[in-house]
Amino acid sequence: MNDVSLLLNVVWTMIAAILVYFMQAGFALVETGFTRAKNANNILMKNMMDFVIGTIFYFVLGFSIMFGTSAGGVIGTSGFFNPTSLADADGLFNGLPIGVFLIFQTVFCATSATIVSGAMAERTKFISYLFYSACISIFIYPITGHWIWGGGWLGELGFHDFAGSTAVHMVGGVCALVGAKILGPRIGKYDKDGKINVFPGHNIPLGTLGVFILWFCWFGFNCGSTVSATTSLGDIAMTTNIAAAAATMATLIITWVRYGKPDVSMTLNGALAGLVAITAGCDVVTNYEAMLIGVIAGIFIVFVIEFVDKKLKIDDPVGAIGVHGACGFLGTVLAGVFGEGVSLLTQFIGVLSVLAYVLVSAFIIFTIIDKTVGLRVSPKEEEEGLDIHEHGSSAYANFRLHDDR
Amino acid sequence: MNDVSLLLNVVWTMIAAILVYFMQAGFALVETGFTRAKNANNILMKNMMDFVIGTIFYFVLGFSIMFGTSAGGVIGTSGFFNPTSLADADGLFNGLPIGVFLIFQTVFCATSATIVSGAMAERTKFISYLFYSACISIFIYPITGHWIWGGGWLGELGFHDFAGSTAVHMVGGVCALVGAKILGPRIGKYDKDGKINVFPGHNIPLGTLGVFILWFCWFGFNCGSTVSATTSLGDIAMTTNIAAAAATMATLIITWVRYGKPDVSMTLNGALAGLVAITAGCDVVTNYEAMLIGVIAGIFIVFVIEFVDKKLKIDDPVGAIGVHGACGFLGTVLAGVFGEGVSLLTQFIGVLSVLAYVLVSAFIIFTIIDKTVGLRVSPKEEEEGLDIHEHGSSAYANFRLHDDR
Amino acid sequence: MNDVSLLLNVVWTMIAAILVYFMQAGFALVETGFTRAKNANNILMKNMMDFVIGTIFYFVLGFSIMFGTSAGGVIGTSGFFNPTSLADADGLFNGLPIGVFLIFQTVFCATSATIVSGAMAERTKFISYLFYSACISIFIYPITGHWIWGGGWLGELGFHDFAGSTAVHMVGGVCALVGAKILGPRIGKYDKDGKINVFPGHNIPLGTLGVFILWFCWFGFNCGSTVSATTSLGDIAMTTNIAAAAATMATLIITWVRYGKPDVSMTLNGALAGLVAITAGCDVVTNYEAMLIGVIAGIFIVFVIEFVDKKLKIDDPVGAIGVHGACGFLGTVLAGVFGEGVSLLTQFIGVLSVLAYVLVSAFIIFTIIDKTVGLRVSPKEEEEGLDIHEHGSSAYANFRLHDDR
Repeated sequence: MNDVSLLLNVVWTMIAAILVYFMQAGFALVETGFTRAKNANNILMKNMMDFVIGTIFYFVLGFSIMFGTSAGGVIGTSGFFNPTSLADADGLFNGLPIGVFLIFQTVFCATSATIVSGAMAERTKFISYLFYSACISIFIYPITGHWIWGGGWLGELGFHDFAGSTAVHMVGGVCALVGAKILGPRIGKYDKDGKINVFPGHNIPLGTLGVFILWFCWFGFNCGSTVSATTSLGDIAMTTNIAAAAATMATLIITWVRYGKPDVSMTLNGALAGLVAITAGCDVVTNYEAMLIGVIAGIFIVFVIEFVDKKLKIDDPVGAIGVHGACGFLGTVLAGVFGEGVSLLTQFIGVLSVLAYVLVSAFIIFTIIDKTVGLRVSPKEEEEGLDIHEHGSSAYANFRLHDDR
Repeated sequence: MNDVSLLLNVVWTMIAAILVYFMQAGFALVETGFTRAKNANNILMKNMMDFVIGTIFYFVLGFSIMFGTSAGGVIGTSGFFNPTSLADADGLFNGLPIGVFLIFQTVFCATSATIVSGAMAERTKFISYLFYSACISIFIYPITGHWIWGGGWLGELGFHDFAGSTAVHMVGGVCALVGAKILGPRIGKYDKDGKINVFPGHNIPLGTLGVFILWFCWFGFNCGSTVSATTSLGDIAMTTNIAAAAATMATLIITWVRYGKPDVSMTLNGALAGLVAITAGCDVVTNYEAMLIGVIAGIFIVFVIEFVDKKLKIDDPVGAIGVHGACGFLGTVLAGVFGEGVSLLTQFIGVLSVLAYVLVSAFIIFTIIDKTVGLRVSPKEEEEGLDIHEHGSSAYANFRLHDDR
Repeated sequence: MNDVSLLLNVVWTMIAAILVYFMQAGFALVETGFTRAKNANNILMKNMMDFVIGTIFYFVLGFSIMFGTSAGGVIGTSGFFNPTSLADADGLFNGLPIGVFLIFQTVFCATSATIVSGAMAERTKFISYLFYSACISIFIYPITGHWIWGGGWLGELGFHDFAGSTAVHMVGGVCALVGAKILGPRIGKYDKDGKINVFPGHNIPLGTLGVFILWFCWFGFNCGSTVSATTSLGDIAMTTNIAAAAATMATLIITWVRYGKPDVSMTLNGALAGLVAITAGCDVVTNYEAMLIGVIAGIFIVFVIEFVDKKLKIDDPVGAIGVHGACGFLGTVLAGVFGEGVSLLTQFIGVLSVLAYVLVSAFIIFTIIDKTVGLRVSPKEEEEGLDIHEHGSSAYANFRLHDDR
């Protein structure tokens, strides 16, 4: 590779990394907008801090676990506390300077971490969330990341997860599932007589802006996963965009039919569902296959979110379990169904292995946190809002809110 | 062209496409912020869905009408349902891989489509808006787009519309004019005794953020219309930025003089007016000419918006007709006045032809929709808000709003 | 340099310039979110207009003062009214086409200008702010900019301020200090009995989004200051990101210890403090040094903001004096402490010279404005809000606000 080619790869990967960083803003807005005003500051701070903690711990430990010299394809074992010392021995960095590759991987790790705060919103202790953030950045994401992208056994096996339907989204979504389950539902969510109450989001324009930001940044997420400038960037952008559009359309229609009106928050989740689902196979499917993947994801998400809410009675305020967990799973499998040269069996092996690992490790971590620091705020704090109790401030000091907020 | 040069063009065009995608967020915020809280969810969903519908229909039909083999310079005729099969026969793609060119053109088409929702806000049926979105993406934008950029007769004639003052903005603005006229004003806008009421926007910070986002993305829109990395990128960014700044300044001063105070929403529209007006000629004017174009647009927009409101009595809640329609027209003509090597006569021929086509086709489409599905919601729905009636939800569940909202 | 290399530098610098433009949105949101609802439109307009005025005056005068032929290393003297005529005689433009370099420098100048509006928020006359904006874009920023980056004496001396801890942030922060001091505190801020009142920000989600946007754009600010595509882009992004993360963490902990709860607005200022502090030395420090710089800045900012508020009794509604002024100073000095090949003595000489010049020139300018047009609105205007009095409109027409707002 000549110098200019390398520098062009550097520039493209940097742009992608910068865009993926900005997904933090998208997640923060989606999670804030779709929850209640009395917890807005708290959820914003959680989003800010999981990136902060992810940055630090992924640097000192996580990156080495993910990309250090592989011990049997299971875990990286070199570079601890000094990740920039790692050389591109196996070509995993695609020839990129370590700094470029490191910042790119850092923002990916943080994306996985930040998914969880939405599902655990409005009732999780702030300090406990910080502990969890460290754990996912050190123990959970980097290990399965090693399997898939770090020279580990799943990558060797031919598991195809181009930009991370499994590695990023399903990992985050499964942690969200475990966390929300252990935490229990918000007060008032499920009545004793079986009635399920809805707590509508307090700022839908902000939440919608979050979805636009995520879609915008997803072009960096998916097209940037080439970690090089290639002629296929446009093809990846096209499959990504068409899948998202088809999913949004499908969800809109389904909600219109089922609920009598086109539902706003579900449709926005439909857009995210399509984006998550196309992420694994965006480089190996045609535009029409992408459209089909989008339609499947857009329908699937409605039933998954209903199932989690009504059957499992797991209270996920923003639908993160369905969007990232279930559609991450789905997209990985569909990459096997449609993707040229991708083995469906390998896809199942990969996605189930990751699922098993994350279920177990997240269960252990959240249980330890729960039994020590405690996962949940007191009922009084929850009812009066986490903003006042956890941070001593309100998000909207000049606005008059409804009494129950 | 060697490989690295091509890949650099790919990277630059991709970045531009990603930025132009994000204009969707800008439009959504401007339109939401400058209308009333009771219709916020509805306008957000319209913005989301016109991009979704534009993506799908431009892919299956619109792109082929715009860039397929030209039938007499009037319409493209090949590539339907399979746009990636089109080859760069006439160099229209500038040597770019089809996927890159396709995503770039998709986001341009969607920009034109999304302009209309603002002018028709707060009273248009959701379903009808979806039909319109499909029509502009298939019939309207791609045909005049073919004339100008797709190898059609206007391009052949030397019509200069670098990034689309006419092709994108005037097309959208004229559809907005026709739609808002057929729809009629919002209830209470024009009293019988001739009094004109103002419905102030409900969230100016969000609307202002929208303007900042649009300005940000406009660098992708204008500089990216090179579809290649050139030494002139900075010159185009400079003329774009100076025109926008000069227009904002001019509008601020005019409103200060006319209304006694510097008006916020008009000044923000002044910024957009400058951006729209420089778009046609940003590559062929000097910085001082750009400044002059900005000043002209910034003054012009104030009088156009007043004229549309007070004389035509067309109710355009966000000023889209003036900003995109009138300033698109103006900018195209001014490119003929100032632009090196641009013929003023040809500019007039182009802009009037497009105006005529869009007026007629938009009139036909909106009339058909009006006579079949119906364009307008019921008075009760309009008064109580489209959010509750069309979507069953409110944008600001925890906030106390004024009774009349 | 061959053609493709040059074009790659053009593309990278353009991307950086576009990102730095978008910092305007970040500042606008931070300043709006952290002040009161009754002044939201006013602060938004100030942010919009300082960019507008900066664009125009930096083009006609400022750029020439900064990059024109140097008179004794003190001031540029050529290119007035025609900055594109300047040639890259001394290699200051790094071989970039003048348009590219000019847009990049324009957005940097505007960043410095926009810092001030936050510290002077909620009581400054709109017209006076416009005068100030012109002055900083012509007299203040370009002169010290010339010293540092324009071929002037500080650059010659080896002063190291890679992306502008001093040149951009401290300049803006010191103007903020002088402006806020001359202006005096908001009514009700300091009681006669010594009690200090807090006016909480009215829209923390918007302010937080502003911080996310600033962090996002800071990658363009710091990495783009290479004005070329290099293999070090990732290293700069890493030090920038780690410093910001470490600072945020440090501030969070400090506020938790001092105030009993992790404070939201202070922690967000901690993130900005880290970003400002790493800006001078982001290219010459290691990741661990960056972490240390972040920790120092994150602790420092808490005490500086308290000192300005409680000891100096200068009312800075958003903490801009501490964030940009003090941490700009700090970061420049720390680049001398940690940076390879950077002289601590030279850093002190540089930062103190710039401090002295800006203190004096800002004092003169604000005093002249104060004695002529008047800096401050009337008490009645201040109490009822600048939005109604200065602009005749309200930012949140449909929302019910608290009486005192």
